[in-house]
Amino acid sequence: MSLGTSVARLLGKQTGSPVQLQRRAAHSVALIGAPFSRGQKRNGADRGPAAIRNAGLVEKLSGLGCQVYDFGDLTFTQVHNDEVYNNKVKHPRSVGSANRVLADTVHGAVTAGHSCVTLGGDHSLALGSISGHARHYPHLGVIWVDAHADINTPLTTMSGNLHGQPVSFLLRELQDKVPPLPGFSWLKPCLSRSDIVYIGLRDVDPAEHYILKNYDIQYFSMRDIDRFGIQKVMERTFEHLLGRGQSPIHLSVDIDAFDPALAPATGTPVKGGLTYREGMYISEEVHNTGLLSVMDIVEVNPLLGASQEEVSATVNLAVDVIATCFGQTREGAHTVFEELPSPGSPDESDSEQQVQI
Amino acid sequence: MSLGTSVARLLGKQTGSPVQLQRRAAHSVALIGAPFSRGQKRNGADRGPAAIRNAGLVEKLSGLGCQVYDFGDLTFTQVHNDEVYNNKVKHPRSVGSANRVLADTVHGAVTAGHSCVTLGGDHSLALGSISGHARHYPHLGVIWVDAHADINTPLTTMSGNLHGQPVSFLLRELQDKVPPLPGFSWLKPCLSRSDIVYIGLRDVDPAEHYILKNYDIQYFSMRDIDRFGIQKVMERTFEHLLGRGQSPIHLSVDIDAFDPALAPATGTPVKGGLTYREGMYISEEVHNTGLLSVMDIVEVNPLLGASQEEVSATVNLAVDVIATCFGQTREGAHTVFEELPSPGSPDESDSEQQVQI
Amino acid sequence: MSLGTSVARLLGKQTGSPVQLQRRAAHSVALIGAPFSRGQKRNGADRGPAAIRNAGLVEKLSGLGCQVYDFGDLTFTQVHNDEVYNNKVKHPRSVGSANRVLADTVHGAVTAGHSCVTLGGDHSLALGSISGHARHYPHLGVIWVDAHADINTPLTTMSGNLHGQPVSFLLRELQDKVPPLPGFSWLKPCLSRSDIVYIGLRDVDPAEHYILKNYDIQYFSMRDIDRFGIQKVMERTFEHLLGRGQSPIHLSVDIDAFDPALAPATGTPVKGGLTYREGMYISEEVHNTGLLSVMDIVEVNPLLGASQEEVSATVNLAVDVIATCFGQTREGAHTVFEELPSPGSPDESDSEQQVQI
Repeated sequence: MSLGTSVARLLGKQTGSPVQLQRRAAHSVALIGAPFSRGQKRNGADRGPAAIRNAGLVEKLSGLGCQVYDFGDLTFTQVHNDEVYNNKVKHPRSVGSANRVLADTVHGAVTAGHSCVTLGGDHSLALGSISGHARHYPHLGVIWVDAHADINTPLTTMSGNLHGQPVSFLLRELQDKVPPLPGFSWLKPCLSRSDIVYIGLRDVDPAEHYILKNYDIQYFSMRDIDRFGIQKVMERTFEHLLGRGQSPIHLSVDIDAFDPALAPATGTPVKGGLTYREGMYISEEVHNTGLLSVMDIVEVNPLLGASQEEVSATVNLAVDVIATCFGQTREGAHTVFEELPSPGSPDESDSEQQVQI
Repeated sequence: MSLGTSVARLLGKQTGSPVQLQRRAAHSVALIGAPFSRGQKRNGADRGPAAIRNAGLVEKLSGLGCQVYDFGDLTFTQVHNDEVYNNKVKHPRSVGSANRVLADTVHGAVTAGHSCVTLGGDHSLALGSISGHARHYPHLGVIWVDAHADINTPLTTMSGNLHGQPVSFLLRELQDKVPPLPGFSWLKPCLSRSDIVYIGLRDVDPAEHYILKNYDIQYFSMRDIDRFGIQKVMERTFEHLLGRGQSPIHLSVDIDAFDPALAPATGTPVKGGLTYREGMYISEEVHNTGLLSVMDIVEVNPLLGASQEEVSATVNLAVDVIATCFGQTREGAHTVFEELPSPGSPDESDSEQQVQI
Repeated sequence: MSLGTSVARLLGKQTGSPVQLQRRAAHSVALIGAPFSRGQKRNGADRGPAAIRNAGLVEKLSGLGCQVYDFGDLTFTQVHNDEVYNNKVKHPRSVGSANRVLADTVHGAVTAGHSCVTLGGDHSLALGSISGHARHYPHLGVIWVDAHADINTPLTTMSGNLHGQPVSFLLRELQDKVPPLPGFSWLKPCLSRSDIVYIGLRDVDPAEHYILKNYDIQYFSMRDIDRFGIQKVMERTFEHLLGRGQSPIHLSVDIDAFDPALAPATGTPVKGGLTYREGMYISEEVHNTGLLSVMDIVEVNPLLGASQEEVSATVNLAVDVIATCFGQTREGAHTVFEELPSPGSPDESDSEQQVQI
């Protein structure tokens, strides 16, 4: 993921510049806005992409040396008379249709060689994001950071909201339990039960608990983080996903994984979440694998903060998660710094540029 | 504590119901309100029971499958001209009298086969709660979760408030240091120094420190939690209390064990307390022993919050502690879920009831 | 650091008093106010000393048994026409001059046998505090608790503020990289790269990262605390500093090491900082070495809180750090308590004094 010293030195020479500072990484990052909120019932999740962009995401990624290709926000066709499936599941055609568009876009971006950031929107978007990703890389590993398991089937859901069900559609092993939904015919399950690890669970329905246990799906609830510590949790996450060889990582972050004190502007907050530091640690560790290929950040809802401070806190947290996944570090190693200027050396007069990011 | 699979299956059959969901536990829980606040000087601790009930405690416990027997709030006789003992100890007759009533009530409830929740009120109530409990189960283990050790004797107390002294009356080994107080003649020490473990201490008087050290009482201060982590602390707590065989657990939780940011509406808050997650972990671990017999939750004072939010936060925290002690989990295993519905299976149409809690 | 039992007993006898309570320590502590803020650009850091004193620091230290010698606040001569060095470094003469005064004062206090607390002011004051300390004890170990490494050279600084550069002037190994600044001629580097350990870093410039790595300076970033836990971090800190023999400790605490939620009234807050408990643990561990000789507490800026509550929280945190470094404990062992009063014993009537602190 990082340029080796010799490559960086080479680049420094190529530009003919005395500047010893080089970007550590040269990611090309596709930014895909997915302002979609029909997977749940509260207004505002569709305003997530604009809020996250306005908080300076592109500038921050560029400052880390990423080449940002902003795909803008997707537009999703309105589906009229979207029936409720089985008297329960809401907006299946809208969700299916939006995710089909997203899947194609993510697939296109990944095929073009970009890393990809999907800005939600609600978590039903993982249907499209993971499907599109897996169409190019069939052997994904998914890290799902969330207070909720989002693994209800259309037959076990209590709320009927599809943002609580995406994983059930994606896992091959669950398909005999998942009925065909209108608007979902394009969707093929693309993950096996061992391809996903959950982190941060603390509000799991009994049926979801049953699935996690009976299908032997790896998860680390907040209780597990309390027991083992975040360091061990990440170690085991990577052992599980990468133990049999390296594969691209899909990181799907629901902002409600964080404690509501940090991320209040979201639709289904649950007490006792990740600390800021745990969130940054997870992001740093994902970056350090060098295998991050697509990430989602979902459920930022700017209409749900009690104040502008709460909205800003939530949005800035989302930006910090993304930036850290693409190389921002707490230890200052964002860039390669090659030589310390000495007094009277030729570099001295240039010192200002040398470290300006 | 949990019904085995075969028992649950049996129960499912007995009801003749197609519902595969069974409550994991069938606790019968006695709820005893003890609106008493003369063990300290601030008004409002007597309003704790009402506030905790109003936050939905009964519904929550019922939702977890507990049979709740609400004993209502005890009424305590006013003691007029309650002298100050030794120019220092305040309201001894009031405290003694109230605890005598509470002891009888707890004893009755435990003898009748209930688990028991005492809603305080101030922490002097542990005198009655533990005495009444021990009258039925002489070999209790007490887990005392608190910022304070509450182990001053009437001769070492600085404030004179009896909510800071209950443990000194309960420990057999301390009785030569404890003078007879008016109103306390009914009380017999019922614990040995090895029958209690403290968790959460961070404001300990020098005399209390002396007692803890010289009587070799097991405690885990916040410093110890910082050193070992909450997982190890709970492991050692159970090793200490249950090492020589299983015995019923009395859990006595002062809400001020939590950080004041989480539980501001209390009389003697101390910075640097338990996090929400640590508190839930403690409660989960106590539940998981299957040995919880009586628990106290004390020092919730609805008059001391700076705002309604602060009061609600404190009260809801108390409810979460109690519910978690009786089976609420962060992993969704509150109930037994026996079979996942399949599309077109006979269960499908019932899917809504199956998972409704 | 603590009086042995027999010594305490002896002292008790010497005073002819029945009071069994003795101070655990008999520190003589010099308090030096350094109301200086020209090392950075925001007004108000010079009001730190007054705010910290007003929060009761002297009373708290006295209550812990310290003999407090309050040197009052230093007065620093105004330097007019203080040029900017190299178009970049701000107020070099002011910073140099103030630190010369501080160095002499700290040196005097340490030579007179006091432990010493420097109240800042901004972190450029470490120049004088550490220099003066090292003049008496050439083999110091420095523990630098801070969100920032403050190790930019005048040639790598981006802001030009000298509070971000003090360590570069103090380390012998860096002197070929540090140009002579006007006002700094009195200053001699007094530390080797192995004499300092950082704790709490999370906003490190690339040039600073380069220095930390290439000069092999020991640091524990927030990421490291997340990985290892604060207990291990302190263990390794002391192994590093004291592994080859005991030496006096200089503890330099920037209040911004703490999370902004705890210490908002400071100039350069950074998210994801130390918890209150981690800060207390660090302070307890430093105290427990018995080797603390000088400590700085800097960057408390009473003009920067959004409310009086925020200012008070920050100031009280500073007081707690200092008090804990001088013996305040979460376990009540501030004082030696020799014997528990018994009912009817001669001590009973004195019980009130016995435990009054």
